[in-house]
Amino acid sequence: MALKSGEEYIESIRSLGLSAHVMGQSEQDLTRHPLVNPSIRAVAATYDLAGSPDEETRSLFQTESNLCDVTVNRFTHLHQSNQDLVNKVLMQRRCGNETACCFQRCVGMDAANAVFSVTFECDQKHGTEYHQRFREYWQRVQQEDLVVDGAMTDPKGDRGKRPKDQADPDLFLRVVERRSDGIVVRGAKFHQTGMLNSHEIMVMPTLAMRAGEEDWAVCFATPTNAQGIRYIYGRQASDTRKLEPSKLDVGNPVFGGQEVMTVFEDVFVPQERVFLDGEIDFSGQLVERFAAYHRQSYGGCKVGVGDVLIGATALIAQMNGVDKAGHIREKIVEMIHLNKTLFACGVACSAQGHPTPAGNYEIDLLLANVCKLNVTRFPYEIARLATDVAGGLLDTMPSAKDLDDPVTGPYIRKYLKAAESVDVVDRMKVLRLIENLVAGAGAVAYLIESMHGAGPPAAQRIMIGRQANLEGKMGLVRRLLGIGS
Amino acid sequence: MALKSGEEYIESIRSLGLSAHVMGQSEQDLTRHPLVNPSIRAVAATYDLAGSPDEETRSLFQTESNLCDVTVNRFTHLHQSNQDLVNKVLMQRRCGNETACCFQRCVGMDAANAVFSVTFECDQKHGTEYHQRFREYWQRVQQEDLVVDGAMTDPKGDRGKRPKDQADPDLFLRVVERRSDGIVVRGAKFHQTGMLNSHEIMVMPTLAMRAGEEDWAVCFATPTNAQGIRYIYGRQASDTRKLEPSKLDVGNPVFGGQEVMTVFEDVFVPQERVFLDGEIDFSGQLVERFAAYHRQSYGGCKVGVGDVLIGATALIAQMNGVDKAGHIREKIVEMIHLNKTLFACGVACSAQGHPTPAGNYEIDLLLANVCKLNVTRFPYEIARLATDVAGGLLDTMPSAKDLDDPVTGPYIRKYLKAAESVDVVDRMKVLRLIENLVAGAGAVAYLIESMHGAGPPAAQRIMIGRQANLEGKMGLVRRLLGIGS
Amino acid sequence: MALKSGEEYIESIRSLGLSAHVMGQSEQDLTRHPLVNPSIRAVAATYDLAGSPDEETRSLFQTESNLCDVTVNRFTHLHQSNQDLVNKVLMQRRCGNETACCFQRCVGMDAANAVFSVTFECDQKHGTEYHQRFREYWQRVQQEDLVVDGAMTDPKGDRGKRPKDQADPDLFLRVVERRSDGIVVRGAKFHQTGMLNSHEIMVMPTLAMRAGEEDWAVCFATPTNAQGIRYIYGRQASDTRKLEPSKLDVGNPVFGGQEVMTVFEDVFVPQERVFLDGEIDFSGQLVERFAAYHRQSYGGCKVGVGDVLIGATALIAQMNGVDKAGHIREKIVEMIHLNKTLFACGVACSAQGHPTPAGNYEIDLLLANVCKLNVTRFPYEIARLATDVAGGLLDTMPSAKDLDDPVTGPYIRKYLKAAESVDVVDRMKVLRLIENLVAGAGAVAYLIESMHGAGPPAAQRIMIGRQANLEGKMGLVRRLLGIGS
Amino acid sequence: MALKSGEEYIESIRSLGLSAHVMGQSEQDLTRHPLVNPSIRAVAATYDLAGSPDEETRSLFQTESNLCDVTVNRFTHLHQSNQDLVNKVLMQRRCGNETACCFQRCVGMDAANAVFSVTFECDQKHGTEYHQRFREYWQRVQQEDLVVDGAMTDPKGDRGKRPKDQADPDLFLRVVERRSDGIVVRGAKFHQTGMLNSHEIMVMPTLAMRAGEEDWAVCFATPTNAQGIRYIYGRQASDTRKLEPSKLDVGNPVFGGQEVMTVFEDVFVPQERVFLDGEIDFSGQLVERFAAYHRQSYGGCKVGVGDVLIGATALIAQMNGVDKAGHIREKIVEMIHLNKTLFACGVACSAQGHPTPAGNYEIDLLLANVCKLNVTRFPYEIARLATDVAGGLLDTMPSAKDLDDPVTGPYIRKYLKAAESVDVVDRMKVLRLIENLVAGAGAVAYLIESMHGAGPPAAQRIMIGRQANLEGKMGLVRRLLGIGS
Repeated sequence: MALKSGEEYIESIRSLGLSAHVMGQSEQDLTRHPLVNPSIRAVAATYDLAGSPDEETRSLFQTESNLCDVTVNRFTHLHQSNQDLVNKVLMQRRCGNETACCFQRCVGMDAANAVFSVTFECDQKHGTEYHQRFREYWQRVQQEDLVVDGAMTDPKGDRGKRPKDQADPDLFLRVVERRSDGIVVRGAKFHQTGMLNSHEIMVMPTLAMRAGEEDWAVCFATPTNAQGIRYIYGRQASDTRKLEPSKLDVGNPVFGGQEVMTVFEDVFVPQERVFLDGEIDFSGQLVERFAAYHRQSYGGCKVGVGDVLIGATALIAQMNGVDKAGHIREKIVEMIHLNKTLFACGVACSAQGHPTPAGNYEIDLLLANVCKLNVTRFPYEIARLATDVAGGLLDTMPSAKDLDDPVTGPYIRKYLKAAESVDVVDRMKVLRLIENLVAGAGAVAYLIESMHGAGPPAAQRIMIGRQANLEGKMGLVRRLLGIGS
Repeated sequence: MALKSGEEYIESIRSLGLSAHVMGQSEQDLTRHPLVNPSIRAVAATYDLAGSPDEETRSLFQTESNLCDVTVNRFTHLHQSNQDLVNKVLMQRRCGNETACCFQRCVGMDAANAVFSVTFECDQKHGTEYHQRFREYWQRVQQEDLVVDGAMTDPKGDRGKRPKDQADPDLFLRVVERRSDGIVVRGAKFHQTGMLNSHEIMVMPTLAMRAGEEDWAVCFATPTNAQGIRYIYGRQASDTRKLEPSKLDVGNPVFGGQEVMTVFEDVFVPQERVFLDGEIDFSGQLVERFAAYHRQSYGGCKVGVGDVLIGATALIAQMNGVDKAGHIREKIVEMIHLNKTLFACGVACSAQGHPTPAGNYEIDLLLANVCKLNVTRFPYEIARLATDVAGGLLDTMPSAKDLDDPVTGPYIRKYLKAAESVDVVDRMKVLRLIENLVAGAGAVAYLIESMHGAGPPAAQRIMIGRQANLEGKMGLVRRLLGIGS
Repeated sequence: MALKSGEEYIESIRSLGLSAHVMGQSEQDLTRHPLVNPSIRAVAATYDLAGSPDEETRSLFQTESNLCDVTVNRFTHLHQSNQDLVNKVLMQRRCGNETACCFQRCVGMDAANAVFSVTFECDQKHGTEYHQRFREYWQRVQQEDLVVDGAMTDPKGDRGKRPKDQADPDLFLRVVERRSDGIVVRGAKFHQTGMLNSHEIMVMPTLAMRAGEEDWAVCFATPTNAQGIRYIYGRQASDTRKLEPSKLDVGNPVFGGQEVMTVFEDVFVPQERVFLDGEIDFSGQLVERFAAYHRQSYGGCKVGVGDVLIGATALIAQMNGVDKAGHIREKIVEMIHLNKTLFACGVACSAQGHPTPAGNYEIDLLLANVCKLNVTRFPYEIARLATDVAGGLLDTMPSAKDLDDPVTGPYIRKYLKAAESVDVVDRMKVLRLIENLVAGAGAVAYLIESMHGAGPPAAQRIMIGRQANLEGKMGLVRRLLGIGS
Repeated sequence: MALKSGEEYIESIRSLGLSAHVMGQSEQDLTRHPLVNPSIRAVAATYDLAGSPDEETRSLFQTESNLCDVTVNRFTHLHQSNQDLVNKVLMQRRCGNETACCFQRCVGMDAANAVFSVTFECDQKHGTEYHQRFREYWQRVQQEDLVVDGAMTDPKGDRGKRPKDQADPDLFLRVVERRSDGIVVRGAKFHQTGMLNSHEIMVMPTLAMRAGEEDWAVCFATPTNAQGIRYIYGRQASDTRKLEPSKLDVGNPVFGGQEVMTVFEDVFVPQERVFLDGEIDFSGQLVERFAAYHRQSYGGCKVGVGDVLIGATALIAQMNGVDKAGHIREKIVEMIHLNKTLFACGVACSAQGHPTPAGNYEIDLLLANVCKLNVTRFPYEIARLATDVAGGLLDTMPSAKDLDDPVTGPYIRKYLKAAESVDVVDRMKVLRLIENLVAGAGAVAYLIESMHGAGPPAAQRIMIGRQANLEGKMGLVRRLLGIGS
């Protein structure tokens, strides 16, 4: 049986012996580090849900591999149908519901589905053998139920210059040496979500490379504990509340996210893990497909987090005794409407998917970009409405330490009392959860990542313009009006 | 073969001998009346597309009946799968693409699918035999490839009062007499889209009736030429341009819409055409289901019209020589994005559909309402952007008569000249088409009907609030925070 | 006494003997033409209000000239203080309140204030004598209380080419001959609001001219009945309803707007009426200043029309018996909020005005552009909300002819009955007024002109970017952070 | 000379010997506490700017008292003209420009102007002598150039119940004892911005009290160090970054905000400091007027912060080398447009102000509410656009400690390098400043306070509905259409 439990998964990460720089310290046992632990627990949820006692949940998270005869976690699945694509979205929404944060495991799934089809087409054209290599590699990922980080974003340096024209060529990750048994790479990848909770890294180029940029057109996999890789932990809003004794002020008492700056200092990658090396004509396609899968993902995960924020908003309204007020109800309906519109986009790009030449299923590219472009907007309005309903305490509430203080505690309990049946500390917990999502560590995933994850809005707009068949629409007009082209 | 051609269809309507009051005149041959003719041509397109020489088109519009062994036009189909539901949306979009207006035939399709399942459930509970009646009735509709108008909206009188409390009880359509062989009804239905292009009318109640309102809880079918029915034609913006000699100023030179106020002056309905009579507990369900199917519809038809408006906007930008300007491109991308978001909602509520106890498929009710609520917003923004790109000529251009005038014509041709390769009259046609859709007869369907068709936004918001399982979302929060209910 | 009554004004226009092509006919007595008459009545309101028996109204519309010792209508005033600028906005709002349409007289006022200061500065630099000429010219305008049309927008031809590079050089209005006693001009001006209700035309260039384009850098005044000028009437949505016997279906039973395409066929302009001729370095300034004054204007006139639309929406809600519903109230509050935001922008750019070197007052350029940019957005949302509240009858109501018909009239009266105390025809009138403003002839001014009048949004955005002192804002950041430039 | 320097001010606060509970500790020298110090420095800026060497700045911040013959800081001024009201907004904008945060001193100014006129009217009606008391009290405030906190928001308990019906009557602050020499009060005030940086507190009721609620209708002033007052410090997002050794990660290296929960434990207030005690008919007026002045304030202060955010966004775009990209420029123009719309509202409600019976000037109530309602929206969109332009590093950048680390520092410097001329640390500073404002401590003031400060949006909507003269607007329609009331 391939599937791990959450606990087994955490143990497997621990055994990798990863180290990272976290807030100026070199840390060794990251899984137990209070800044990191909430994030690995969020990934562990993707394992525990796959092993849920609930039949329906299990059937959403478990599926059958097309590579080998084994039941796999859908997070390692190569989609075999439109229903698979829809189920991916439903699974992601469910994970968002459970964790109220980024659970980090989508990137590898999205990378794999892109690499699977792009390598197939590259082999067809260039006679390379990347696809078979990838199948073998991914079979192991499925069998061992691994977490794979997908690494795309390069530092980029001066945005006005191409990779090959940068003052420092390492500002885009590149091959610095080609050996008979593999390649040596140097560079960095930014914003690596959940990197330290991953067994493997799948590296992809960050943009479509051109002639003369073959060294930057590289795709490969490497273990996270490979020699030469360094990790520097990224800061999040209110991150150090996780280091405080009480979990109250963190808002989300269990789960959290993680982003890491990753440096590749002449890392060796053996040949069998290289999936693109110099085929510039497929670099753009890889970026575009990975991005589209990942833009679909946001129609699931952010919707799941949105559900929690809507629930918290409804709950605080109830606790404040204003849940019957017309304008409160209207705001909550609006939050639901926006969140469901995102969900609709996630589902639609899946339902309108199609098989690739390699056999796995790809979402509708245009609709996936529409999905993500909405994700760069609606969570902001949902958060704004949550802020409206939650009230001013959101940002002025005393600390958990003051709640526990013998002098101030009684005052806090006296004056934060709302409706009679409502426990004061429960009310504070809900307010802190909302704060977490609209202006704390959770906002990093719910708002800022909604903007930039899988590419910023400008990237989606370019794709929408390119995919929209404007010529066809002009043709409709010409025909209706009986005018020439 | 059950399927009619567009021409046969028009002939079949003509043979009904319908008459109506149009602008103060009693008109007899409506199909040839210049105000009415564009609307019947739009319905005829639903026939012609089903008989298209193009295989793909045909397979979208034709499908197999579940009632009898015959190929039917999808507009008379009882949906048998989620794919059927998606295909309905694709078909509607296609019709919008062809006609750039309301093609009127959806209402009956949506009514039939609602009546089919509601009568089944009513029979289960009350031992009535409506479902079998309806199956027989609808079988004939399929076999004869008829257009059925779905009539829901009553005049409503004083909105602060229930049907039974109105000063005039006829302000909601009602049964005024029950006879052994049928019922006699009186009242009116407003906003009847395409009524005069229909063979049949399916009447439904306008809201959930309560005890004491049994007479208003009535659903039945009647031929449009039944005795006692009167039609009064509704006005549209710029409607009389259709009466002018040139088609240029109309904007849409071929197709158009139609709304009719319909009066039922003691109309007799035989028993076998009655599908609900007094079962108040199913009246609300019928409203809700019909509305949901019809809200899904808007995710197809308005998207199709939106495509045309986007195409016309791109075309006028090209004709004006500004299609390369960054801000113009951004606006067109935004129009596409909004239109595709509507499409995504139409697809998503279909893909997430489910079978009813009666066996036909129903859309996801929540997502269908989300779909329509977006339709009450985005077409307005799309139209605003089209107005922006099209330029001020939209509302100041001289008349077609002045173009044809020997004195003014040459000036118009000289000064409306834009990019060299562009024919002046072609440019005027495109501007008039845009005007038609943002401020003319087409705006009635594209904007005002987008607001009120299938119910106004407040109705969708109520459904969204009701369907959203807010309690479940609050439960997610309670579990995450470990707090009591 | 310089001030005319409305009736005297109409008579004075009639005596000009203007003729125009209207819908393919050459019309002579335009003031009595049913298509034109509503528009001249709207201008007449600017006269009647200045002679109002109400003291407060009079003091808003009357003021003292700075050119000569005479009381003038503020519509011919050269602003002498910030309060004058604010009063201009208040006056415009008031006119909108009275007419619910475009009252057309602002353009000349805005042109005069721009020409006044630009000619002063041009004379300073170039030793020309335009300013004195203009003072003398305008003194007469004030003394005779004239309406001056401001004409800016050229046909523009291929937008990708400069005036001098057009295939037809007349596509921008230009000097074709310079004589000792004056100049001869050829070309056309589009979208001329209220042209046929004006005594005079002030022609300005449409953009900043460059070296080699001296012939296009021309500003002058001419009587509307000068030889060689031709007028072709523009169409508006639902325009011909004004030709129907009943005023009900027009919506606005008294007032309306007008746009005219104007052709200058070698028109001679005597020297004393020329205010710029070849000074390309002041052409851009003239465009920019006129545009800014005119962008301020929209913060008054459209707000006034908005007030009427809000009032009509509140009234129909009351008539329908839904004015107490929470969501209806919220929508009306939102309409007010948006409308008042526009008003705030109109007031603010006035209150922050400053004197020009010539001595009259100029609005804050940045805020005037912000004002207009909001005008390209909020009226659309206000109209959308009005459509929402008004209900579906807006676009499906039978014609006035059917109301008067002995057969259909009684049905219409029976079934359009709403709350008991409400007269059915009054209700129809309010619905038709709303229709007029959101999808009829009134929408031309309220929506389309809000987009393109005084330049489209892209023009405002350019000015906002240019005026915003971004460098200063970056300086704030550098100082706060202690970083170098 | 009445005016203090910033340093003198800080010293004067220090000498009050205030103590507070901060994160579970009782702290004594708050002015030097690293969590508190940035906030007192922000207030000090209001002093230093009044003593600026720059003439123009001084003349904005200094003005002449109407109470006594002394030059005062405008923050203690009773407005004497519309220009005073406009200058208030300009001054606030300037403070926001300098501090990029909440400078806390407006509340007292707004409270004083409300209390000044309300006490006058109360005395007129009830023969009380509050106004004279207040004049004397405020004269001292002006002469000593004090900071006065304005305290309005009560805990409110169960929002479904009136003050007198709460389980705990202290949930609204109230008089618990009336003595010959004064009153004793008990209760709490929440969200007290800058309380610990104030010399005095002005307490006002939180809503319009009704018969039977006389004990809650109380307004008075008290020194911040009066016996019985307790302070509990509120948490802000990322607050503890202020405790870290480097200022880099804080974002705003100098200034910050502060909110405090304040408990009144049987505090005695001498008679001469009581300005309302039981006159329930003036409690609502006090709330409404204070709120309106404070809603005006947001049209200044938030605009000032917005300027900084726009500057930072433009700067990071430049540093990233993307400032020339069309879509970046469009986004920055949009930010300016929105920010300037807020400014326009602040200016307009000032320019349209009017004198009160007491002689000071009051803003236009309706426009002030419109101003604030926009402030609950536009900063969110501005922040969203800043997030878009700034890029993903905003939330994933390593800590200052890692920058200083010998191992990781060089990697950070290598890979965060952007355009060649840009210092890496400068770039990090700008990113951290943006993070501060969109998702850090600065967002508390810029976003959450923009929502709830001076009342949430629902409060503004109620006032807009109430002030809008809807009846007058309906009258315009009735007159135009010639219909009865």
